Amino acid sequence: MLLPTLREDPADAEIISHKLLVRAGLIQKAAAGIYSYLPLGYRVIRKVENIIRAEMNRAGAQEVLLPVVVPAELWQQSGRWEKYGKELLRFKDRKDADYCLGPTHEEVITSLARSFIHSYRQLPLNLYQIQTKFRDEIRPRFGLMRGREFIMKDAYSFHASPESLDAEYQNMRETYCRIFTACGLQYKIVQADSGNIGGSVSQEFMVLAENGEDGLLSCAKCDYSANLEAAVSHVDIPRGGQASPAVTEAVREISTPQRKSIEEVSAFLQVAPEKLIKTLVYYYKKNAREDYVVVLLRGGDQLNEIKLKNYLGADVVLPAEDSAVEKITGVEPGFCGPVGLTKARIVADELVKAGGAGVTGANKKDTHLLNVVPGRDFALTETADLRLARPGEKCPHCGAPLEAVRGIEVGHIFKLGTRYSEAMQAEYLDQSGVSRPFLMGCYGIGVGRTVAAAVEQHFDDSGIVWPQALAPYHCVVMPAAARDQGQLAVAEKIYQELLAAGVEVLLDDRDERIGVKLKDMELMGIASRVVVGKALSEGKVEFRLRQAKDNEMFPLAEAGKKVLERLA
Amino acid sequence: MLLPTLREDPADAEIISHKLLVRAGLIQKAAAGIYSYLPLGYRVIRKVENIIRAEMNRAGAQEVLLPVVVPAELWQQSGRWEKYGKELLRFKDRKDADYCLGPTHEEVITSLARSFIHSYRQLPLNLYQIQTKFRDEIRPRFGLMRGREFIMKDAYSFHASPESLDAEYQNMRETYCRIFTACGLQYKIVQADSGNIGGSVSQEFMVLAENGEDGLLSCAKCDYSANLEAAVSHVDIPRGGQASPAVTEAVREISTPQRKSIEEVSAFLQVAPEKLIKTLVYYYKKNAREDYVVVLLRGGDQLNEIKLKNYLGADVVLPAEDSAVEKITGVEPGFCGPVGLTKARIVADELVKAGGAGVTGANKKDTHLLNVVPGRDFALTETADLRLARPGEKCPHCGAPLEAVRGIEVGHIFKLGTRYSEAMQAEYLDQSGVSRPFLMGCYGIGVGRTVAAAVEQHFDDSGIVWPQALAPYHCVVMPAAARDQGQLAVAEKIYQELLAAGVEVLLDDRDERIGVKLKDMELMGIASRVVVGKALSEGKVEFRLRQAKDNEMFPLAEAGKKVLERLA
Repeated sequence: MLLPTLREDPADAEIISHKLLVRAGLIQKAAAGIYSYLPLGYRVIRKVENIIRAEMNRAGAQEVLLPVVVPAELWQQSGRWEKYGKELLRFKDRKDADYCLGPTHEEVITSLARSFIHSYRQLPLNLYQIQTKFRDEIRPRFGLMRGREFIMKDAYSFHASPESLDAEYQNMRETYCRIFTACGLQYKIVQADSGNIGGSVSQEFMVLAENGEDGLLSCAKCDYSANLEAAVSHVDIPRGGQASPAVTEAVREISTPQRKSIEEVSAFLQVAPEKLIKTLVYYYKKNAREDYVVVLLRGGDQLNEIKLKNYLGADVVLPAEDSAVEKITGVEPGFCGPVGLTKARIVADELVKAGGAGVTGANKKDTHLLNVVPGRDFALTETADLRLARPGEKCPHCGAPLEAVRGIEVGHIFKLGTRYSEAMQAEYLDQSGVSRPFLMGCYGIGVGRTVAAAVEQHFDDSGIVWPQALAPYHCVVMPAAARDQGQLAVAEKIYQELLAAGVEVLLDDRDERIGVKLKDMELMGIASRVVVGKALSEGKVEFRLRQAKDNEMFPLAEAGKKVLERLA
Repeated sequence: MLLPTLREDPADAEIISHKLLVRAGLIQKAAAGIYSYLPLGYRVIRKVENIIRAEMNRAGAQEVLLPVVVPAELWQQSGRWEKYGKELLRFKDRKDADYCLGPTHEEVITSLARSFIHSYRQLPLNLYQIQTKFRDEIRPRFGLMRGREFIMKDAYSFHASPESLDAEYQNMRETYCRIFTACGLQYKIVQADSGNIGGSVSQEFMVLAENGEDGLLSCAKCDYSANLEAAVSHVDIPRGGQASPAVTEAVREISTPQRKSIEEVSAFLQVAPEKLIKTLVYYYKKNAREDYVVVLLRGGDQLNEIKLKNYLGADVVLPAEDSAVEKITGVEPGFCGPVGLTKARIVADELVKAGGAGVTGANKKDTHLLNVVPGRDFALTETADLRLARPGEKCPHCGAPLEAVRGIEVGHIFKLGTRYSEAMQAEYLDQSGVSRPFLMGCYGIGVGRTVAAAVEQHFDDSGIVWPQALAPYHCVVMPAAARDQGQLAVAEKIYQELLAAGVEVLLDDRDERIGVKLKDMELMGIASRVVVGKALSEGKVEFRLRQAKDNEMFPLAEAGKKVLERLA
């Protein structure tokens, strides 16, 4: 067998799952973000795949396999050929035709449905695949967590009515719960942003882990949880807002020499940060058209760029360069404000409106304005929720405080609606004979990520502690002294007995010190071990579960039976 | 379910498996040589994969999964980055680094072994994977038979001795026999050329089929079979060769105005074609060096370019352009000959030597030479078997006549030796502590090709007739009149009964005419059918195996049991 373990963490590994998966010999890096799965690692991958496959089949979905190499034409039809960034690996074949490596397969499946589904009578339909995909991440890292080549289960459903889509979305939501529960993982379902997949509603399945890549806000009381990207919160606006005496006062300039940041202005003027109106200028690109937008936030708040991007329907949003800021506001960043601004569209966070009078930049160097009332001193035609929600703020559902949690996204379910079917003219005839675009849903699970997340959630100082369903082997049998033929013969006998009983078992007959062998097996997370050692003279063998503290002694004659009992 | 059948053959389909796999709704073309596997097709693919997996595991091989996207560096180390033609799809990632889509994985696995295997004690080892690969065929066609994207099982073994490699090669040979037997296929094992994989010994597993892509020569008596590319045959040289009177005569020029081809010269001079010595000029490229070689064959024989390529150790061989021929021989093609030739290396087929005196071109327009004796009138330092063997010639083992057969290559096993380990410095320490390159074997099975080959071997006028082990479903149950609720209820009951008994069964409740439904099921090759129709009034249902001619009538109460009996 090839079970290579390493004593040292790989130099590029920052997180525990990356370190342990490499050290325990489950994966090997082939290039940045590209891994080989070694025998032990692929065993775990296949356990996850089989759980997924069983549950997807049970849910009525049908397995297909779509191409890895996708013709550009399909992505051009959906419009994503232009919109998707450099993460889409594009190339030409020997005949100079354009292709990409599929990072996701909405286009291919929509084209497939377009060919074969002509009538409402063929709907609904849910097709899934388990496939190696590629996304050319600019900074691949964290081992299987953010690789470029990755194994994914992606499912796509087609419907003739919103009710049917809702029902399948719910079906998949429940199926995903069964899958992650069967994998033995603790997870949360959170509200999510739909990113460059598109669609209106989406939820992520997050495996909870201290070092999770994603920040979440989770209600302590109800079941509201959201990715920070998408989190919404309620904030009480303190009195002194629109109803305060200040509202009646006129706008007044005040000198604020070299005070640019919210902190500086707040301290200098002795005004609470939330009474400042922060003015940001953003560049955005929408359907190949470029423009700028001025964003207003309360001083203490941070912009959630994803919310801005979604609000604008933009493909890209980026902070404007200083030169653009000066062109639009007439002043360097730090002294900008909405009053008198005509050169760009203005969008205010909804709390700016609710917050009433405040302090803003005067669009004049070293100067701010007091008593600026939104709607009175500048037009306030566009308001939206643009803030990054924060822990401690109130749950939008029940008002209880939100808590910060970290998670790893292992699944994502989307209601796509007609995003792809309209663009690609994928239509069916409804009951009245009218042509309509399919309503679609899509549902993904990162297979490698699920394995990595399982490690992030289940490890100790000695190595991986797999959930039972994912453990690559359930038992290892080893002689304490590999060259002791008596011990070896007994170990082999117990091994054969367990094998015959259907246990996934290893015989470790390597000529290594017992300490090395035990360390290896703990590192790999083999669920239990039988050591045939000194006690053999008393007719006994040692047994220990991976997480137990002490050995148990089993009489030789009952060893197989006892191990089976403990593993059950 | 998505089971789309087509009435018409696809326009680009030339062979039966391509036609039937598309028409029966198993695959759909996404681009030239790139297919999606639909639910029924992927079911068959997975049956083949599972047979392969079970047998490979049984043989002691371990499953891994290597990257699809392979860094150029590894292919540069093996030297194949330069040598492999345009079939290797090369591209750059966003950081401008070179990669290719792996068409085969010797480099990746050798690099993996180099990292992890340090001692003879870790050998032998056999690692395999089942993976989607890509080869940018210049003329993709025949559906799954010669696609660009394809699913392959590839295994690689590592050894410390030739005996160990021999044993594993034999183990894989037997494993492949078990796999193709389990798939229900008739096949032959044939001697093969190793192509651009390299190595010394290789054999192909050929599924026999009338329209097979490969020509084979097969001995009627013993077990010798070979791909035409590699076939060797014995030919008796008729008397009148070296021992004939003509040998003593001197070379003499003869005018042969405008007679260029073997046929023309043979007819004009009234000399049997095999007494002519055909002179060909070939261009070849070896390790980036280009050169020409003059090849001599008996007039009636054809050059086997693969044999020439292997003899020269060349990367490419191509017929020389006319201008090159004139430069080397001083005359246009048709009048060339070896006498007096000094501008290129000369290689003669071994039958040229054995054949004795003959007629050749005179390197002078419209002129040939009579009585040319190889070795006397021109130097004959290099001879080799360069001929294309022909049906009717003698088996090299037993002398019985060889027969022409056609086959489809579904598996290929190679002794690679140290081809990759030397180039990539993949070494282990032997028992004496000396560093040595691994001896390697490699073993491939085309999964999609196996499915296509099964169809080529098993079909009739109505569609596919799957071997039992590959049939996507074993039974379909259908009401004769879909809207007859009584029939439907009975059909559903039988369906549920079969499902519960573990039968892979379909319920065809589509509102289509029974004729259409029966045609579909025969096209798809569902192994049997139960029709709930008119006979229901007598308490009976119809049953028919896919290949039976007549219906059987089963009493309703025993229907499930009877179907199980027939399928057993």
